[in-house]
Amino acid sequence: MMKQRLLAEAIGSFFLFACVVGSGVMAEGLAGGNVAVALLGNTLATGAILAVLIAMLGPISGAHFNPAVTLAFRIRGEIGTREALLFVLVQLCAGIAGVWAAHVMFDLPVWQYSIKPRTGTGQWLGEFIATFGLVLTILGTIKVSKAWVPASVGLYISAAYWFTSSTSFANPAITVARSLSNTFAGISPADVLGFIAAQLAGAIVAVYTFRVLYTDTD
Amino acid sequence: MMKQRLLAEAIGSFFLFACVVGSGVMAEGLAGGNVAVALLGNTLATGAILAVLIAMLGPISGAHFNPAVTLAFRIRGEIGTREALLFVLVQLCAGIAGVWAAHVMFDLPVWQYSIKPRTGTGQWLGEFIATFGLVLTILGTIKVSKAWVPASVGLYISAAYWFTSSTSFANPAITVARSLSNTFAGISPADVLGFIAAQLAGAIVAVYTFRVLYTDTD
Amino acid sequence: MMKQRLLAEAIGSFFLFACVVGSGVMAEGLAGGNVAVALLGNTLATGAILAVLIAMLGPISGAHFNPAVTLAFRIRGEIGTREALLFVLVQLCAGIAGVWAAHVMFDLPVWQYSIKPRTGTGQWLGEFIATFGLVLTILGTIKVSKAWVPASVGLYISAAYWFTSSTSFANPAITVARSLSNTFAGISPADVLGFIAAQLAGAIVAVYTFRVLYTDTD
Amino acid sequence: MMKQRLLAEAIGSFFLFACVVGSGVMAEGLAGGNVAVALLGNTLATGAILAVLIAMLGPISGAHFNPAVTLAFRIRGEIGTREALLFVLVQLCAGIAGVWAAHVMFDLPVWQYSIKPRTGTGQWLGEFIATFGLVLTILGTIKVSKAWVPASVGLYISAAYWFTSSTSFANPAITVARSLSNTFAGISPADVLGFIAAQLAGAIVAVYTFRVLYTDTD
Repeated sequence: MMKQRLLAEAIGSFFLFACVVGSGVMAEGLAGGNVAVALLGNTLATGAILAVLIAMLGPISGAHFNPAVTLAFRIRGEIGTREALLFVLVQLCAGIAGVWAAHVMFDLPVWQYSIKPRTGTGQWLGEFIATFGLVLTILGTIKVSKAWVPASVGLYISAAYWFTSSTSFANPAITVARSLSNTFAGISPADVLGFIAAQLAGAIVAVYTFRVLYTDTD
Repeated sequence: MMKQRLLAEAIGSFFLFACVVGSGVMAEGLAGGNVAVALLGNTLATGAILAVLIAMLGPISGAHFNPAVTLAFRIRGEIGTREALLFVLVQLCAGIAGVWAAHVMFDLPVWQYSIKPRTGTGQWLGEFIATFGLVLTILGTIKVSKAWVPASVGLYISAAYWFTSSTSFANPAITVARSLSNTFAGISPADVLGFIAAQLAGAIVAVYTFRVLYTDTD
Repeated sequence: MMKQRLLAEAIGSFFLFACVVGSGVMAEGLAGGNVAVALLGNTLATGAILAVLIAMLGPISGAHFNPAVTLAFRIRGEIGTREALLFVLVQLCAGIAGVWAAHVMFDLPVWQYSIKPRTGTGQWLGEFIATFGLVLTILGTIKVSKAWVPASVGLYISAAYWFTSSTSFANPAITVARSLSNTFAGISPADVLGFIAAQLAGAIVAVYTFRVLYTDTD
Repeated sequence: MMKQRLLAEAIGSFFLFACVVGSGVMAEGLAGGNVAVALLGNTLATGAILAVLIAMLGPISGAHFNPAVTLAFRIRGEIGTREALLFVLVQLCAGIAGVWAAHVMFDLPVWQYSIKPRTGTGQWLGEFIATFGLVLTILGTIKVSKAWVPASVGLYISAAYWFTSSTSFANPAITVARSLSNTFAGISPADVLGFIAAQLAGAIVAVYTFRVLYTDTD
């Protein structure tokens, strides 16, 4: 079972991260300088693959693909510490492999790092809000509208790409992986820590908000 | 229970209004002057977050986020007067907080008011039709296709952004909140009352149309 | 019951036709000459409103909004001749009212007729294929995947807007109504009959194809 | 039953291939040189029609429309060799008829072949990954989230159009058919074999990955 759960996290993270970076390369390459058009393509692809991967892999591993989500389930006691650490390790490794696969598919150098600055209070608040909303969506929808989970997560990220100034990374593993891609979806390595701190804070606050919001007794 | 219902309305209104304004800022900033492209991004984000918030918060508070919807449920006797007033208060306050959060995320001054005129018979008819359709969709779909409610409301607003000349505010609280944002989604404070009057009229007519359309006896 | 069914057809046709024409006006007005961007907005709005209207009104009237669909159900004996004629009358009248409402919303003259030519073998084949596919989708999906009907019809028309040269009117009532709008969605009155003939032929062939494809015995 | 299954494959392949090529012609013709906008239209149409066709024809034939999918079901023993060969034959013939119908609809010469080169390691890796993901999505989603199959396949291909450098043909029959269309979706006949080899390899690896990932015993 554990092997299958890790394989599910690996396949999901690989496809998710390859899709985020690959669709960014495709979109920017074709959009003729209209960044909103590029972001439409990037959004459509990311939201779509998320829903697919969750429908298909959720019943196996829970379909985290995201250390902030794994942290939330760890705080709630729904996953053990050792398994959580293995999940995060697999998310990172398979996710980076996905980014590199995107580079190979688009005939780009495999090894890159981004020079795109993404920093400042506005973007950190964006990552906090984006991750808070993502984790609350996951926990809340699992609790009250289970059939809606794949669609909800895909749609939530589609919206968050547009309403946050950081285009909603909302995922520490993808933040690291995107620092290794000097493309549309990239983030300068120097800015990774600020994003991750905001993401983890958002995830933790979401867990406690969920407790208040969905506990049956008042 | 009441505390949880108000918290659900607060979180939903915060995210909905932050999304409407934030995605408008993002879209207009990136679209290079092509307003249709900007509206595509704004539409995608708004429709998506609405479906997510309703799937996740509907079972708690009914997921109104909209005084016109609360009014409709009040006329139908499904919510008490005191609770309805608290709902509207929370929608306004949390919604405005969402607009201000969008301003902070995008490094804009928090306090603004819009100078964009939105007025005239055409737009008032638009708001009447948009809110009539929204309330009828909510009441009718709850009655006959409950599983479709989150998708229906998200899709309805996505369509109404395009087929009404006012881009379908269809929500008195968001009309007030958008008057406090001099961005893509803004509306001049002087034009707020006309919009709200048309919206409330549409909501009231929808309640009576629903009664005729869905009553089991002819 | 009959009054409610006719009211459902009226409301649905009003919103559908208002949406097709209104979103066309909005999209063309904002798209800065990029017709593909305009068609994206027009498609998004039309597909979305169709799914909403079918989820909400399907359980009342069947949600035809389309004489070709009513004809198909008449051939199959699922609706009587008198009711079918009333359906078509209501679809036409309420649909034209929807087109006129769109004109008022966008501050255009109410009374117009289109000068946009839409004719020729290619477009007639397009209307035949589009209507064949629409009717087969409706009959087949009702038979084997009932929960998918609202989504299927909305998605089918979204696709057909792009893969047919005529942008898939696929509806005799909307063809007449669109001849009364000299906007993005218009069609010259002289070209209406050719379109309607192709649509009815497609609907009839679809009814017989359905019979072969879905009959349980071979 | 067999006759109905083959007819379902024929109708599905006809509409799918007509949609891929037709929406490509429409999109490229209207997009004013912005290829990302064209790809948005092409993606929307293809993803939408796939979901519709699978919801409607899946219960009859399994809705393959794709020799790589038929091969996967053959390896798994869910379809016999003779039937599998008939499926592939029908997919090819009806699919090519769909491409030709698209040509007629858009007033283009029926008989064409593409001169668009699509080759190289990056694109072959893209086809391998795209087909691997498609077959894994189909098998996995059928196993654990059956209601999600039509949406998943439509969304998967929508994403894969953007995250693979080859825009994800992922289907040997459509690869052949698209070589007969010198339009947006075309591929030079000389490049067909490389694509098909990569696709079949991806399908085969997916069958074995599925076995590891979804077998109940560890």
